[in-house]
Amino acid sequence: MNLFVFGLKLSKWMNTTSVRQISKIGFIGLGNMGNHMARNILKKDYQLTVFDVDKSAITNLIEAGAKTASTGAETVKDVDVLISMLPSSQHVLNCYTGANGVLSSVKKGVLLIDSSTIDPFVSQEISKEVEKREAKFIDAPVSGGINAARDGTLTFMVGGSKENFDSAKIILEVMGSRIVHCGDVGMGQAAKLCNNMLLAISMIGTAEIFNLGQRLGLKNSVLNDIVNSSSGKCWSSELYNPVPGILPDVPSSRNYEGGFSTFLMAKDLSLVQSAATRTNTLIPLGSLAHQIYRILNTHGLSKKDFSIVYQFIKGNKI
Amino acid sequence: MNLFVFGLKLSKWMNTTSVRQISKIGFIGLGNMGNHMARNILKKDYQLTVFDVDKSAITNLIEAGAKTASTGAETVKDVDVLISMLPSSQHVLNCYTGANGVLSSVKKGVLLIDSSTIDPFVSQEISKEVEKREAKFIDAPVSGGINAARDGTLTFMVGGSKENFDSAKIILEVMGSRIVHCGDVGMGQAAKLCNNMLLAISMIGTAEIFNLGQRLGLKNSVLNDIVNSSSGKCWSSELYNPVPGILPDVPSSRNYEGGFSTFLMAKDLSLVQSAATRTNTLIPLGSLAHQIYRILNTHGLSKKDFSIVYQFIKGNKI
Amino acid sequence: MNLFVFGLKLSKWMNTTSVRQISKIGFIGLGNMGNHMARNILKKDYQLTVFDVDKSAITNLIEAGAKTASTGAETVKDVDVLISMLPSSQHVLNCYTGANGVLSSVKKGVLLIDSSTIDPFVSQEISKEVEKREAKFIDAPVSGGINAARDGTLTFMVGGSKENFDSAKIILEVMGSRIVHCGDVGMGQAAKLCNNMLLAISMIGTAEIFNLGQRLGLKNSVLNDIVNSSSGKCWSSELYNPVPGILPDVPSSRNYEGGFSTFLMAKDLSLVQSAATRTNTLIPLGSLAHQIYRILNTHGLSKKDFSIVYQFIKGNKI
Amino acid sequence: MNLFVFGLKLSKWMNTTSVRQISKIGFIGLGNMGNHMARNILKKDYQLTVFDVDKSAITNLIEAGAKTASTGAETVKDVDVLISMLPSSQHVLNCYTGANGVLSSVKKGVLLIDSSTIDPFVSQEISKEVEKREAKFIDAPVSGGINAARDGTLTFMVGGSKENFDSAKIILEVMGSRIVHCGDVGMGQAAKLCNNMLLAISMIGTAEIFNLGQRLGLKNSVLNDIVNSSSGKCWSSELYNPVPGILPDVPSSRNYEGGFSTFLMAKDLSLVQSAATRTNTLIPLGSLAHQIYRILNTHGLSKKDFSIVYQFIKGNKI
Repeated sequence: MNLFVFGLKLSKWMNTTSVRQISKIGFIGLGNMGNHMARNILKKDYQLTVFDVDKSAITNLIEAGAKTASTGAETVKDVDVLISMLPSSQHVLNCYTGANGVLSSVKKGVLLIDSSTIDPFVSQEISKEVEKREAKFIDAPVSGGINAARDGTLTFMVGGSKENFDSAKIILEVMGSRIVHCGDVGMGQAAKLCNNMLLAISMIGTAEIFNLGQRLGLKNSVLNDIVNSSSGKCWSSELYNPVPGILPDVPSSRNYEGGFSTFLMAKDLSLVQSAATRTNTLIPLGSLAHQIYRILNTHGLSKKDFSIVYQFIKGNKI
Repeated sequence: MNLFVFGLKLSKWMNTTSVRQISKIGFIGLGNMGNHMARNILKKDYQLTVFDVDKSAITNLIEAGAKTASTGAETVKDVDVLISMLPSSQHVLNCYTGANGVLSSVKKGVLLIDSSTIDPFVSQEISKEVEKREAKFIDAPVSGGINAARDGTLTFMVGGSKENFDSAKIILEVMGSRIVHCGDVGMGQAAKLCNNMLLAISMIGTAEIFNLGQRLGLKNSVLNDIVNSSSGKCWSSELYNPVPGILPDVPSSRNYEGGFSTFLMAKDLSLVQSAATRTNTLIPLGSLAHQIYRILNTHGLSKKDFSIVYQFIKGNKI
Repeated sequence: MNLFVFGLKLSKWMNTTSVRQISKIGFIGLGNMGNHMARNILKKDYQLTVFDVDKSAITNLIEAGAKTASTGAETVKDVDVLISMLPSSQHVLNCYTGANGVLSSVKKGVLLIDSSTIDPFVSQEISKEVEKREAKFIDAPVSGGINAARDGTLTFMVGGSKENFDSAKIILEVMGSRIVHCGDVGMGQAAKLCNNMLLAISMIGTAEIFNLGQRLGLKNSVLNDIVNSSSGKCWSSELYNPVPGILPDVPSSRNYEGGFSTFLMAKDLSLVQSAATRTNTLIPLGSLAHQIYRILNTHGLSKKDFSIVYQFIKGNKI
Repeated sequence: MNLFVFGLKLSKWMNTTSVRQISKIGFIGLGNMGNHMARNILKKDYQLTVFDVDKSAITNLIEAGAKTASTGAETVKDVDVLISMLPSSQHVLNCYTGANGVLSSVKKGVLLIDSSTIDPFVSQEISKEVEKREAKFIDAPVSGGINAARDGTLTFMVGGSKENFDSAKIILEVMGSRIVHCGDVGMGQAAKLCNNMLLAISMIGTAEIFNLGQRLGLKNSVLNDIVNSSSGKCWSSELYNPVPGILPDVPSSRNYEGGFSTFLMAKDLSLVQSAATRTNTLIPLGSLAHQIYRILNTHGLSKKDFSIVYQFIKGNKI
């Protein structure tokens, strides 16, 4: 038996050990996404303590056996792992560093997992504070939406040390099917934001060419065939086409309901814009995509799937 | 034997018949692309007559057995099929409708194939003039670049009647491996332009996110893995990545030599811009992509592969 | 007396002579603008012949003494000067070069004045055809809108030879108060389009800062004082402010009625876009301004004054 | 004597009184701008204490009679008024709230004037901390550049209470000729940023039309006359024209030396971008202007006057 194989076994064994230590989990932020994630944790017989400023958000979890806490500080007091799933950088900052926040009572060695999508810079600032308290922090934003949260098939993009990533993996696998280590703290956020910026750009581009094609007399089906077998192909054109009727099971074919909302896309692009501005980075198309999704929000389309930009480009009312 | 199979055989036989009628071909525009295409025709034992305003462009073809003509009118006078491969709408207009142009001497029933990438509106205007002379016209722009032209593996996007498409197919198959019927005259151009606009947009977007990722501390390899297994995936990120070293055999890994030049991308985007402006069609990202490729041209990068936009976004000199 | 001075005197004398020779004028295109302009000509006792495809557009002029013609050819047949005021490049092309068009019957020496706002390239193409017939052509687009047309206070931006400019001046002064010679044929159009592009850009910019200021807590009146005494000042901020209530007598203070419509601004930006695309000229902001005015048109604001972009930026419905 | 007049006299008297109380002033940040401003204060016989992390920046002021301090805390300890002039939001935050910062030793009633150009949100956050210590804060960013700083003719845009504005005025008048009250804390910044965003937009627009005009054949002098007597007129076209030779005494006519640097314009646009992103405000042209100035910075033009965007648009190397 060579060392490499031995090393592999040892590391497996160590992981198993560390896993056994996790029995109590705290969860802050039980909205659309967080509630599903927390339920998947409960199903695995962990002891779960939940906290949300909206009491009605946790009723179903209490019925399913969760304990409740009334502050972040109380939520983290007696757990091995704490997960947060909050709507913005400011919420996360308050939750961790505010009065009665998580950091006011977190113990040494506790692992804090923030699955919110926020500014990577904020993740890094919080992480520094966490380290001062000898606790552990990773950022672990998700992709996949509400259905994946319900089904436990989210993708987690994780930023943090390899050790913390390894510790978190067994918990994240309860909620997701793909757990990717992206680098140091903040890199989970960075990876998600970069992906979503390219998604926004290629979605708007897809919307533009299908509308232009029609205006020039081209059939949608022909353009669909051409683009998706050529160099214009992208995820938006192939698997999430914004033109109703091309693909059967996407938001564009059900009046742009469900999916990933224009509001959330604009939010992610705000985070990209902030990150790019702080680092003096050029993002000409990303910046215009940001403005376009902001226009959609301003004009009443914030709750629709982000592929509705196609109807906006056409000038149609939905 | 069922009808479907019979139909198939019959159609093959009919094609064969029509093929026998094509023995003499004219070719106008023997530049980088046209010269390779013409050589593939010569290899198939067609009688070829060639014309280019630049005499030196046809030397090799004369040596290989082609006859020469000194005007468009002379080139088309005694052929079954004429192919043109020219750099701009204006060149094509002059070639067909100018003094001593193709239309001044084209005979009834001759098939005119324009493989130039031009404004679909111009294709349609020429087609009307062709029909008045009872000749036939298709637009058949290509994708695939110089290597595909040399190897006879171009993709042809064809606009014209089904009958003319069928007639042209056997000739186009001498030069290409994929021949797609896109609709009426102009729709080959429309399809190509729409594809290339989305290509430009997703290439710039890809360049933006890889640069932004780096500025935030993300490794190229990590972002590459994330994006190409997620919703940001596009042809540019997956198969033509603009970051040197990610893919071995793309222009970015050989100093942006070869490939599809910034000059040609800016040209195609000009055609898109004109088509969109004429039809009052919204193309916010396409329009900004057009300006960005124009900036690259203006700043000395016109001969480099269009993926060099990545270096421009980084602020690097090449 | 040296020859130069003699030449000068002679030319002055000739101008005077040529002015006296203008008694009969033709006018094509009697829409909102053209009708007012034609009436001002009638008031000066010229013999006027009018033609419009819409017969109802000329009723008032016939009552006021104008003769009618039924084609462009007929309109120009017996006049010294012909004026055209049409909505697009295509209309002007048809009017001059189409069947029964002006050029089919124009006589030597007749002066053709096109006051339409069109692509300068089209002006130049028409001018070449006019010269072949030994007639004279100037482009003379206007600014000032319907009120200035009614009051005879239009500004004419004229492109053409100095001699033709001088000949036209006396007629243009009947309709306008400021007649500017901008250079050769097409330069009237070029000057107008350049001005209007900067107008569109600075109007949108003005709308953006007043909205942003409000969002940051700044009073409109304070920002108005600061900007209009500082380096941000522009015509739109100072004399045509898009924020209702800042200036009493502008479209923004009367529900964006009257003024210069979003439709016409989008049209002028289309002409700019075409001219820039044809000449490979960078216009990043002009191009985005074009897209923004196109969005407004697509979303039902085409008839409102172009300062309504302020309400669009705010996300308000009008 | 009615009450109103009495009130007026009383307030005048009170101002005079408060003025007499200011004898000691601290100044932090003695760079290009701050050094000139501090010298103007010294000339008026105030006792001045200065602090800059770069010791060489204060040599001339010590020779002229200033005392030095080694931290922000020490600078503010014994003064009536403290002025700061620093390069970024982060510098200002550190200077006020960092270890040994101003807030660690500021006494009740002391007036803190921040003349840095920073994020208005940061000004507001600092102001809250200042109020907790019962001191006073105003933001007072300037316009006018180095020459105006030297000559004491700066414009100050002030945000803060009316009372604090009145107290600050006598000191600001030592350094500037125009002191404008813009509203509550942060509104000085907001006003400056809004003005500069419109300036950036109209400068790029001016550059675009002069280049486009040339490409279409129009003379610079003609376009200059037309635009500056029409609706396209803006400060950039009329008083700071980016085309060399049109105006004698502007940066474009001396190789874009002096003036307001591309670097500082990009910085101000970053602040605008952040403020707009934080408040979910649409700034499509402002956002593109930001990206364009960022391109200029990335491509080596950061030290040139911001009107050099004209040469960039032309594709010229400087």
